[in-house]
Amino acid sequence: MHKPVLGILGGVGPLATAYFMELLIKKTPARTDQDHMPMIVFNDPQIPDRTAYILDHAKPNPRPEMAKVARWLEEAGADYIAIACNTAHYFYDDINEAVKIPVVNIMEETSERISSLVLAGSTVGLLATEGTVESGVFQGYFERYGLRCMAPDPDGQARISHLIYDCVKANQPYDEQEFLEEAYRLRDAGCEAVVVGCTELSVIYQELSRHPKWLFDSLDILADRCVKIYETARAANGHIEM
Amino acid sequence: MHKPVLGILGGVGPLATAYFMELLIKKTPARTDQDHMPMIVFNDPQIPDRTAYILDHAKPNPRPEMAKVARWLEEAGADYIAIACNTAHYFYDDINEAVKIPVVNIMEETSERISSLVLAGSTVGLLATEGTVESGVFQGYFERYGLRCMAPDPDGQARISHLIYDCVKANQPYDEQEFLEEAYRLRDAGCEAVVVGCTELSVIYQELSRHPKWLFDSLDILADRCVKIYETARAANGHIEM
Repeated sequence: MHKPVLGILGGVGPLATAYFMELLIKKTPARTDQDHMPMIVFNDPQIPDRTAYILDHAKPNPRPEMAKVARWLEEAGADYIAIACNTAHYFYDDINEAVKIPVVNIMEETSERISSLVLAGSTVGLLATEGTVESGVFQGYFERYGLRCMAPDPDGQARISHLIYDCVKANQPYDEQEFLEEAYRLRDAGCEAVVVGCTELSVIYQELSRHPKWLFDSLDILADRCVKIYETARAANGHIEM
Repeated sequence: MHKPVLGILGGVGPLATAYFMELLIKKTPARTDQDHMPMIVFNDPQIPDRTAYILDHAKPNPRPEMAKVARWLEEAGADYIAIACNTAHYFYDDINEAVKIPVVNIMEETSERISSLVLAGSTVGLLATEGTVESGVFQGYFERYGLRCMAPDPDGQARISHLIYDCVKANQPYDEQEFLEEAYRLRDAGCEAVVVGCTELSVIYQELSRHPKWLFDSLDILADRCVKIYETARAANGHIEM
């Protein structure tokens, strides 16, 4: 029986990739090493910074390298691909077109999940990189699922960007409380749900001693979806239905 | 400049592999995603259980599949290989002979590190799978470095095997205290140092709120060595010196 192989386009960022694998492993109904899902991961540090390019197209374009890694994963035997980075989904169509195998979309999965839990027209807060917020890509998915979007004010966004770039990506300590305060600010401003929409913030999210019910981690939702694809395909002799 | 690519023979076990990546990433002197080490990981659940085979050679032999994954990693572009599993080092020579690139040896690195910190002839406690303990492979490395070895008594070994197989590998909760008690038993019996010599136990080790100075995690030592190889090779334009 063929077990579908998950390819992870990784290293964006590296710690988020390791945490994503941990989530997948803990969510898989497995009692032994042999029950777990096969995974191929390429942590490629050559992928240029996504936000830097989105904010200034004169900066190195991460598109070609990400498409290259996706093709590499497909050739190496992956049956489906996940990317542990929200901002990278700005380039989703290019990555998706580079391969024949399905690429799970973290923004689509997150929007779908939240839309099933809140009323249509609800406002959802977005904690993400400046690249993700400025590009409006996540907002587009929210809209398709009947949701409005609210991002932090410029000061709040600066504090979130600091946590992402100067703390998690830079291997420096951070204060989980600072992160939680930004989430509460959006909640207090009227958001029905708040999305952890950057996988570096997911690394902080996992450290929280309590998780408010209205706070949704996009990486956790992506992991749920990948495990579901794996379990379904395993029962269908490896055939992936998206 | 070529950055050396680390190939990880993973999935043995899966959670230990994710934790090993996390250790590598946190130990790398990096300030951005782009500073991190390139890594290719293959989490292969088809590798049969190592301990089962060591204790009973009628069971499926993990050797061919591990050699296959090592060759796969080499062909995929890895410049050196690490295996996040102590018991798998029973098959180290076969894996090493299957490829032309160097394979870092967790048992050798651990023995070398401890021998540099304790007096020659000191006794070192070994917390590991029954496969690792029974095979005597770790003891052989200890001896080469002038160290004696002490394993838990049968009851203690049964408690350690339970933590490895019924808890960590089975995605079930565990009590860190039980693990620490076994380490203290070896310490109280006269061990100068105690080795966490199974990467599932490394997963428990990381959760401890305090780490006794005489307790050494083999996976942590393996990660130190891989980061050192990476940093040295990066300065030498990718050339790996072992």
